[in-house]
Amino acid sequence: MRCDTLWTKARLITMTSGVEIVEGMIAARDGRIVYAGPEHDFDADTTHDLAGRLVTPGLIDPHTHLIYAGDRCHEFRLRLEGASYEDIARAGGGIATTVKATRAASEADLIAQALPRLDTLLAEGTTTVEIKSGYGLTLADELKMLRAAHALATHRPVRIVTTFLGAHALPPEYAGCPDDYITEVCEVMIPAVAAEGLAVAVDAFCENIGFTPDQTERVLTAARAHGLQVKLHAEQLSNLNGATLAARHCAVSADHLEYLDEAGIAAMRTAGTVATLLPGAFYTLRETKVPPIDALRRAGVPIALATDHNPGTSPLSSLLLTMNMGATLFRLTVGECLAGVTRHAATALGLGAEIGTLEPGKACDLAIWDVDAPEQLVCRVGLNPLYQRVFNGAVS
Amino acid sequence: MRCDTLWTKARLITMTSGVEIVEGMIAARDGRIVYAGPEHDFDADTTHDLAGRLVTPGLIDPHTHLIYAGDRCHEFRLRLEGASYEDIARAGGGIATTVKATRAASEADLIAQALPRLDTLLAEGTTTVEIKSGYGLTLADELKMLRAAHALATHRPVRIVTTFLGAHALPPEYAGCPDDYITEVCEVMIPAVAAEGLAVAVDAFCENIGFTPDQTERVLTAARAHGLQVKLHAEQLSNLNGATLAARHCAVSADHLEYLDEAGIAAMRTAGTVATLLPGAFYTLRETKVPPIDALRRAGVPIALATDHNPGTSPLSSLLLTMNMGATLFRLTVGECLAGVTRHAATALGLGAEIGTLEPGKACDLAIWDVDAPEQLVCRVGLNPLYQRVFNGAVS
Ligand SMILES: [Zn+2]
Ligand SMILES: [Zn+2]
Repeated sequence: MRCDTLWTKARLITMTSGVEIVEGMIAARDGRIVYAGPEHDFDADTTHDLAGRLVTPGLIDPHTHLIYAGDRCHEFRLRLEGASYEDIARAGGGIATTVKATRAASEADLIAQALPRLDTLLAEGTTTVEIKSGYGLTLADELKMLRAAHALATHRPVRIVTTFLGAHALPPEYAGCPDDYITEVCEVMIPAVAAEGLAVAVDAFCENIGFTPDQTERVLTAARAHGLQVKLHAEQLSNLNGATLAARHCAVSADHLEYLDEAGIAAMRTAGTVATLLPGAFYTLRETKVPPIDALRRAGVPIALATDHNPGTSPLSSLLLTMNMGATLFRLTVGECLAGVTRHAATALGLGAEIGTLEPGKACDLAIWDVDAPEQLVCRVGLNPLYQRVFNGAVS
Repeated sequence: MRCDTLWTKARLITMTSGVEIVEGMIAARDGRIVYAGPEHDFDADTTHDLAGRLVTPGLIDPHTHLIYAGDRCHEFRLRLEGASYEDIARAGGGIATTVKATRAASEADLIAQALPRLDTLLAEGTTTVEIKSGYGLTLADELKMLRAAHALATHRPVRIVTTFLGAHALPPEYAGCPDDYITEVCEVMIPAVAAEGLAVAVDAFCENIGFTPDQTERVLTAARAHGLQVKLHAEQLSNLNGATLAARHCAVSADHLEYLDEAGIAAMRTAGTVATLLPGAFYTLRETKVPPIDALRRAGVPIALATDHNPGTSPLSSLLLTMNMGATLFRLTVGECLAGVTRHAATALGLGAEIGTLEPGKACDLAIWDVDAPEQLVCRVGLNPLYQRVFNGAVS
């Protein structure tokens, strides 16, 4: 049989079931996996002898806010010096700082500022990154963010999946009138985003300090009416039954979920909604309420893990560390952590048929590691054992 | 004035007081800083224009167990799958695993296995690393570990500071006879280590699961009798008044200190003992008792931070992440975190006159960063903004 590229003497973790290791090879043609299994006869233009290295699917970060201008490290400093969140908000800080800087930035600025963050993810074998808008909060600025996100894939070999998050925060222009802003999101922004094909999904921040369940439902309804997938920031700081709401709208994922209850879990299981957990935000905010991992496990709800990279509550650019935090802080097993950034992360993006496992027909996105065992990817903190990253069949 | 190398258009954080930024330059001659301050007239062989980049002292990791063979990631995996520490100990796991592997390893093996960990530290601007023995627990194996640690400095441009930690754990040969092992440590090992000049300090693990205060005192006494500095793993899991004991022996540092009390703090202040905090172990062990930061602050006890890199309780290879954990988990300020891995880390190694600040006469060890403000080194997680590392005046 004929292929473009072969990786031989590999130890494959296909992620099709658990973290079993298969000794063998991977063959790619036209950027797709055509074979992954025990050694087999192939003709190839290029053959890489991996000398027993471990191969996993390329990692997938299914929840980030990677595009923004400026940072909020100064507020981090002030909080350590005793300033309260209220002090900082009164001084015009918090998300408002990022909205202001992002509105003032050009698309080129946004790209330039995001590239070092993206490069950090890629250096650890990440091949797919979800990126949300949500710091523009005007039609033009939200579109600018989404265009900048897409443009990253022209600068680097990576798959970018974009989500429209207009309902992230109330822009200052709509202070006191959240329903009017939601009308703008539903009637102007979502139609424009859909018409330009700038996002495949719509997200919202359903929380006491965000938007109400009623406002959220309007957003999700508008998204579905325009043929977009939906997902939701839900149950992070309180239980507003956002997961149930999201599941009712067939959400691909509900994210955060510290305060998720049994009814929400049941709704997610029925709808096939992935639970995307964000331990970096849990760590940074020093939360103590852990998501209901055991109940999710028992219900068979797939668990994804993401960096939630953002300048305020999770300035985290490492999926390896995200896995370590998933294990250390949430007590996920090694297999659950790895599935969380591969197979289930793909499902959380609606891309379960395209990426996330090493199977014929899928994109040939690989992370090749200088480790002996999968637990070494999760246990160690701060050490990057990536040997080679492969995106769509090409070594990069 | 004449020098070898100039770094101009720098923004200096000299760490001589807080984290104030001085716009200026650094001049080096024969590997030493001869000037650090506002721009000034110098003749130099080489000039680096830093275009406004931030310069700090090279980072110092004052507490690691970087030399060992094998790893314990498999035990990490088993614990996540429900095994207790007791289950793992009964199966021969825990520190015994590392002792067995380290004894079986050659000096060359130990060096080869430590280099990737060391390289990770160096990539973040670290220029000095303390390394302890303590996984050999026989004279020959302890000396082998210390020789391997020293050898790292012939493989990489880095300052290695070694500590003899024979009293780390009870070796299996001495089961039930800890006092006899302490006699071996005091009467055979410490004299041999001192005679060969293989360590500048002696450490011990004073804990209910380690050695008693009486046994520890014998070790510290023997160390001082041989002209070696002393330091101590103290008050990590319980309060045995180890810090007071260490201070009575003029320890350069007492390390961990979660259970430190006011008497211990007073003793440390009087003796000038540095409090070396290890947030990576706190994080990995999911401890909840935070060291008494406010009381240390009020007493003016200098606080250092270290990775405590080891294969079991802190498999952490990043001083940037250590600073973030110091801030996030222990609520140290940005200035305290930076002093913890520079000025106070130097003092914790007895090298306060040699490294740790940007001052004339000190070794020209620099970390040059692509950031605007010091808080960006502490706030961000997983992003490495190092631009250039300088060790003894040489760019590496
Ligand atoms: Zn988010
Ligand atoms: Zn230690």
